[in-house]
Amino acid sequence: MPGIHFLSLNKPISVYPMERSSCLLFQCLDQVGIIASLVEFFKDHGVSISRFEEYTDAAHFFTRLEWQEAHPWQDGQSFSRRFQPVADLFENASFRVHFFDQPQKLGLFSSKEPHTLIEAVNKCEAGDYPNTEICFLIANSPSIEKYANRYDIPFYYVKTWKDPARHEEEQLKIIQQHAPDLIGLARYMKILTKDFIARAGCPIVNIHHSFLPSFVGAKPYELAYERGVKLIGATSHYVIPALDQGPIIEQDVVRVQPGDSVEHMKRIGRDVEKKVFATALEKALQHKTITYDNKTIVFN
Amino acid sequence: MPGIHFLSLNKPISVYPMERSSCLLFQCLDQVGIIASLVEFFKDHGVSISRFEEYTDAAHFFTRLEWQEAHPWQDGQSFSRRFQPVADLFENASFRVHFFDQPQKLGLFSSKEPHTLIEAVNKCEAGDYPNTEICFLIANSPSIEKYANRYDIPFYYVKTWKDPARHEEEQLKIIQQHAPDLIGLARYMKILTKDFIARAGCPIVNIHHSFLPSFVGAKPYELAYERGVKLIGATSHYVIPALDQGPIIEQDVVRVQPGDSVEHMKRIGRDVEKKVFATALEKALQHKTITYDNKTIVFN
Amino acid sequence: MPGIHFLSLNKPISVYPMERSSCLLFQCLDQVGIIASLVEFFKDHGVSISRFEEYTDAAHFFTRLEWQEAHPWQDGQSFSRRFQPVADLFENASFRVHFFDQPQKLGLFSSKEPHTLIEAVNKCEAGDYPNTEICFLIANSPSIEKYANRYDIPFYYVKTWKDPARHEEEQLKIIQQHAPDLIGLARYMKILTKDFIARAGCPIVNIHHSFLPSFVGAKPYELAYERGVKLIGATSHYVIPALDQGPIIEQDVVRVQPGDSVEHMKRIGRDVEKKVFATALEKALQHKTITYDNKTIVFN
Amino acid sequence: MPGIHFLSLNKPISVYPMERSSCLLFQCLDQVGIIASLVEFFKDHGVSISRFEEYTDAAHFFTRLEWQEAHPWQDGQSFSRRFQPVADLFENASFRVHFFDQPQKLGLFSSKEPHTLIEAVNKCEAGDYPNTEICFLIANSPSIEKYANRYDIPFYYVKTWKDPARHEEEQLKIIQQHAPDLIGLARYMKILTKDFIARAGCPIVNIHHSFLPSFVGAKPYELAYERGVKLIGATSHYVIPALDQGPIIEQDVVRVQPGDSVEHMKRIGRDVEKKVFATALEKALQHKTITYDNKTIVFN
Repeated sequence: MPGIHFLSLNKPISVYPMERSSCLLFQCLDQVGIIASLVEFFKDHGVSISRFEEYTDAAHFFTRLEWQEAHPWQDGQSFSRRFQPVADLFENASFRVHFFDQPQKLGLFSSKEPHTLIEAVNKCEAGDYPNTEICFLIANSPSIEKYANRYDIPFYYVKTWKDPARHEEEQLKIIQQHAPDLIGLARYMKILTKDFIARAGCPIVNIHHSFLPSFVGAKPYELAYERGVKLIGATSHYVIPALDQGPIIEQDVVRVQPGDSVEHMKRIGRDVEKKVFATALEKALQHKTITYDNKTIVFN
Repeated sequence: MPGIHFLSLNKPISVYPMERSSCLLFQCLDQVGIIASLVEFFKDHGVSISRFEEYTDAAHFFTRLEWQEAHPWQDGQSFSRRFQPVADLFENASFRVHFFDQPQKLGLFSSKEPHTLIEAVNKCEAGDYPNTEICFLIANSPSIEKYANRYDIPFYYVKTWKDPARHEEEQLKIIQQHAPDLIGLARYMKILTKDFIARAGCPIVNIHHSFLPSFVGAKPYELAYERGVKLIGATSHYVIPALDQGPIIEQDVVRVQPGDSVEHMKRIGRDVEKKVFATALEKALQHKTITYDNKTIVFN
Repeated sequence: MPGIHFLSLNKPISVYPMERSSCLLFQCLDQVGIIASLVEFFKDHGVSISRFEEYTDAAHFFTRLEWQEAHPWQDGQSFSRRFQPVADLFENASFRVHFFDQPQKLGLFSSKEPHTLIEAVNKCEAGDYPNTEICFLIANSPSIEKYANRYDIPFYYVKTWKDPARHEEEQLKIIQQHAPDLIGLARYMKILTKDFIARAGCPIVNIHHSFLPSFVGAKPYELAYERGVKLIGATSHYVIPALDQGPIIEQDVVRVQPGDSVEHMKRIGRDVEKKVFATALEKALQHKTITYDNKTIVFN
Repeated sequence: MPGIHFLSLNKPISVYPMERSSCLLFQCLDQVGIIASLVEFFKDHGVSISRFEEYTDAAHFFTRLEWQEAHPWQDGQSFSRRFQPVADLFENASFRVHFFDQPQKLGLFSSKEPHTLIEAVNKCEAGDYPNTEICFLIANSPSIEKYANRYDIPFYYVKTWKDPARHEEEQLKIIQQHAPDLIGLARYMKILTKDFIARAGCPIVNIHHSFLPSFVGAKPYELAYERGVKLIGATSHYVIPALDQGPIIEQDVVRVQPGDSVEHMKRIGRDVEKKVFATALEKALQHKTITYDNKTIVFN
C-alpha cells in the first residue's frame, strides 16, 4: 500500500476547529460497494476522511463524510464535477458538499412569543452554529424589534395584510435582498403558501409546539390538556406545503404534573421548544441532515 | 386545641408498611373549605392523616389522603356511611376508600408478545403491587401458557372464535369465577366490546404501543417509522369502548437512532411498554388514580 | 359546620395570577396532628387554602400552603405573631411566609461564561420569576458588561484582587447597597469565604458543572471525560462554606456520545447548566424550597 | 472501477438477521489513511461492509465494521492471519473479530436481589442477546435457585466461606467447566480478587447501584439519600481489581421525589439497575464495546 502516508498527528483530529472542516452528504439506493467507492475517491484525491458516519434505512444508504485538510477542490462545483462519476455508479444517488470556511446566513421569522428566537440568537452568538450570521429578523408584531436591536440584527416589521399574497411578497423581497442559506420560523404563527416555500430559495425549519403527529395546527397545548397526555412535546421539521407534515428533524418531551393548567403547560413547553428548535437549526447549519421519503436522517 | 394529642413517633411515618395503610380518594367541584372539612372529619374520628396530596384542575378538586393507624371503620361501607354527609357538602362530590390490608386480585390478558406480561408478574412477585395476587392469565395464544406455569398462575387459553360474542362469553365466565379487582391487558391485541367492558365488573388497564393520541390502532411502530418521528412511546390507559381513547394513566418515550428499522423500534419499544404498563398497574393498585373528563389524575 | 361558606368560583383556582398568592413554608419533627392544626389555623382566620403540599422525610415533616385571597395579616411579622403559638405546639418547628405581591430582588455574579446568566435574565424578563427584578450583575471579567447593558441591569466590574478579602469587601458594598433577596452565582468561578456567605444577608444559589457529588471543584468536565462517564450533569445548590457541598436544589444530566471530546462535553453541558440553574432560581424565588440536614425539599 | 460489482438487493441490509453477521472491532493511534486501508482490505477479499461506525477520541481511533455475507475466513484465526499485516501498518493497533453464527455463553452471578438477574434472563430468552445461552447461575444465597429453575439454567449454590480463596476456587471450577464468553454480576455483592478476575478467562460485567463515580462501595442508596441528590442512578462496567473503578459501559438515572425514603429509592432504583445491566450485557454480547484508558467506546 505504497500510496498511503501515515502521518503522526500532533493534535487529535476530533478537536480540529469546524471552520477548517468540509463535509459530503451522499445518499443512494443501498447496494454493495458504496463505502469502498467513496473511500477510494477521497484516497485518489489525497484527502483523508476524518469522520465517517453511515446509515441504511429500508432500501436507502446515507452517509456523511468529513475531512479537515486542504483539498484539491476550489468550490462545490469543482468538487461536483469530480465526484459526479462516482455518484453515477449508484442508483438514485444525490449528494451535496459544504466547506465550513464558507460563511452561512440564517434568516429568522417570529410572531409574538420570543423564547425560541432568543435561544437561536444566543446559540448563534455563542458560536454553536458554524460560521453563521443572522442576516434578518422578520416579525408580524412590532414587539419583537427590541430583541433584534439587542443583537444588531436587521429587523423588518411586516404587517399582516388581509391579502396573504401581499404579505408574502413583502417578505420575499427581504429574503431576496439577503439570500439566506436557511430560514428558521421561531414560533412564526402564520401558514406559508406553497408558492412562498418554493420561492424562498432555501430550506425552512419550523418549530411546532406539540409532539407531532399529535395536535397538528392551532392550540396544541389546549388539545394536549384536553386529551390528558402525560408528556408534552415540541417538534422541529423542514417546512413543506402541508401544514406540520414536513420531515421531522428533532423532537423532545417534558413530563406534565397532575393538575397542570394549560398555562403551566405552555410555560414548561417553552423550554422544550427552545431546545428542539435550537438543535434543529444546529443540525441544519452543521449540514447533518438528509431528507428522503418525507423523513430526515440526522447525523451525530 | 385540647383535643389533639401529639404523640412522639419511634418510626418515621414514611416507612410504615403499605399493608397497614388506608387511603381516601375524593373529588368534587372546586370550592373554598374542602381541605378544612376533610381534615376536620378525620380529626373528629381520631385519625391522623399521614399523607395529604391534592390538585385542582380547571374547576375540579382532587385529593388523596392516607393514614396508617387503626381507624374506627370496619370496612368501606362503614366508612362511607360516616363520610357521606361531608361529601354531600360539596358539588359533584364522589369518593372511594381502600384499606391496604385487604388483598387485591389482578387478572391479566395476553396475546403473543410476553414482555409486558412478564414485567407485571415480576413486579407483583417483588411486592411492588400492594397485597396483590394475580388470579388468572387469559391468552388467545397457547404459547403464553409457559409464562403462567413458571409463576403458578391459573392459565386459560381462550381460542379466538369467529363470533366475538362467544369469545367474550368464555372470558366473562372466567372473570366472574375469579372476580378480579383490576384487569390488565398485557399486549392483548383484540378490541373489547362495550358490553364486555360493562360486564367485566372492574377497571381495565391497557398498554398501547404508541405515544397516544398518535398512531391509534394497529401497527403503530410501522406508522411511527413512516412518519419519521424521533421518539417512540407507549401509553397505558383505562379502557373505554372507543379504541385507544380512554383516560391516560402513564406514558413514556425512547429516542430513535438514525437508520433504526421498524424491527429495531419494536425491540427498543418493548422496554418502554414494560415500564409504562407496570407503572400504570402499580398506580391503579396503589389506588393513586382518579378519572374525570376522560383524563386521569395520578398521585405520587 | 356552619362557619364554612361554599362559594362557587368563576375562575379555577389554579390559574390565579401568582402575584395574588401567598405561601407558608413550615417544618417540624413529624408528629400526629400537624395537618389538622395548620388547617384549623387558616380556617380560624377565614382564609381558604388553595394549594397544600406536604412531605415527610425520616423524622421530619414539611409543608407548603398557598392561598389566593385577601388575608388578615398586614405583613410577615403580623402573620408570625399570630402563627407562632401554632408552631410552638410542634418540636423543632420553623416557618416562613411570603406574600407574592411583594417585589423581590435577585443579584447575579458571573465570570466569563455567559450562558447561565443569559438564561436567568431571559427567564426573569419572561415573567417566570414571580415579581422579581434583577438588581445587579457583578462580574470579575469586563466582557460580561454587554449582557448587562442589553437588559439595563446595573453592572459592576469587580477586579480580582490578590487579596480575597479586598475583593469580597467591594462586592459586599454593592450587595449592601441593593439588598437582594437572593444571589445567583451564574458560573462565578471564585470560592466564597465563610465570612462573605454570612454577611451576604440572603441565600446564595450556585451552579456547579457536574453531577455532584462527582467531580467537586475545578475542571469537572475534564474529570468526567477522564472517568469515561456516559452521562454528564449539572447541580444547583445553596452555597455553604464547604465547596460544592451545600444542599442540592436541582440536578439534571445529558448523554455523552462515543468519541465526545472535553470541548464537546462542555458545549452540551451548557444547556444542562442553563436549565438547572434557571430552575433552581425559579424554585427559590417561588419560595418552594426548605433546607434541613444539608438537603433541600423542593415543592412542585 | 472494474473490480466492484453492484448487486441489487432484494432485502434491505439493515434487517439481515444478526446470526448471519460478522463484525470487526479495531483500534489504533489516530493517523491518516486508516479508513482507506480497512475498506481496501475488505474489498480485496470480496466482502462488502454493511455497517461502518468509527470514532476518534483524543489520539485514538476506534471502529466497528459489520458484514452480512459469506466471507473467505474459516474462523477468527484465519481472519487474523490475513488482517494482521493491515493492523501492523498502524501504531498501537489491536483488533478482534466475531462471527455471530458462533454461539456464545453467558454466566451469571447473583446474591439475594433477583431483579437484574430476571431482566437479563428474560432478555436472553427474548433473543436480545445474539446467539447466546446462559450456561450457569452461581449464587451465594439459596433463595436464587427458583429463578434458575424457571428457565432451566444450571444453578450452583456456593456458600460464602470465611476464606475468600476457598470461595473463589469453588466458583472458578464451575467457570472452567462451562467456559463462558462473558460473566455478568447481577447484583453479586462480594468483591472479586485480582487473582479471580485474571483466572476467570473472560470479561466480567458488573452493575453498581449508583451513578459512579459517586457512592462507590457499600450502601450507595443510603449515601445518595444522605447527600440529598435529585437523581439516583446505576452504572454497569467491566470489572477490574479496583472496586467500582472499571471502564463504564452504561449509566442511567431516575428522578427522586421530595420525601422519598431510602427504601423508595431502592425500589425505583431497581428499574434503572435492570435496564443498565441488561443494556451493558447486550452491548458486550453484540461485540459493540472497545476498552482503552479505563474507558469504554460503546457502538450504536
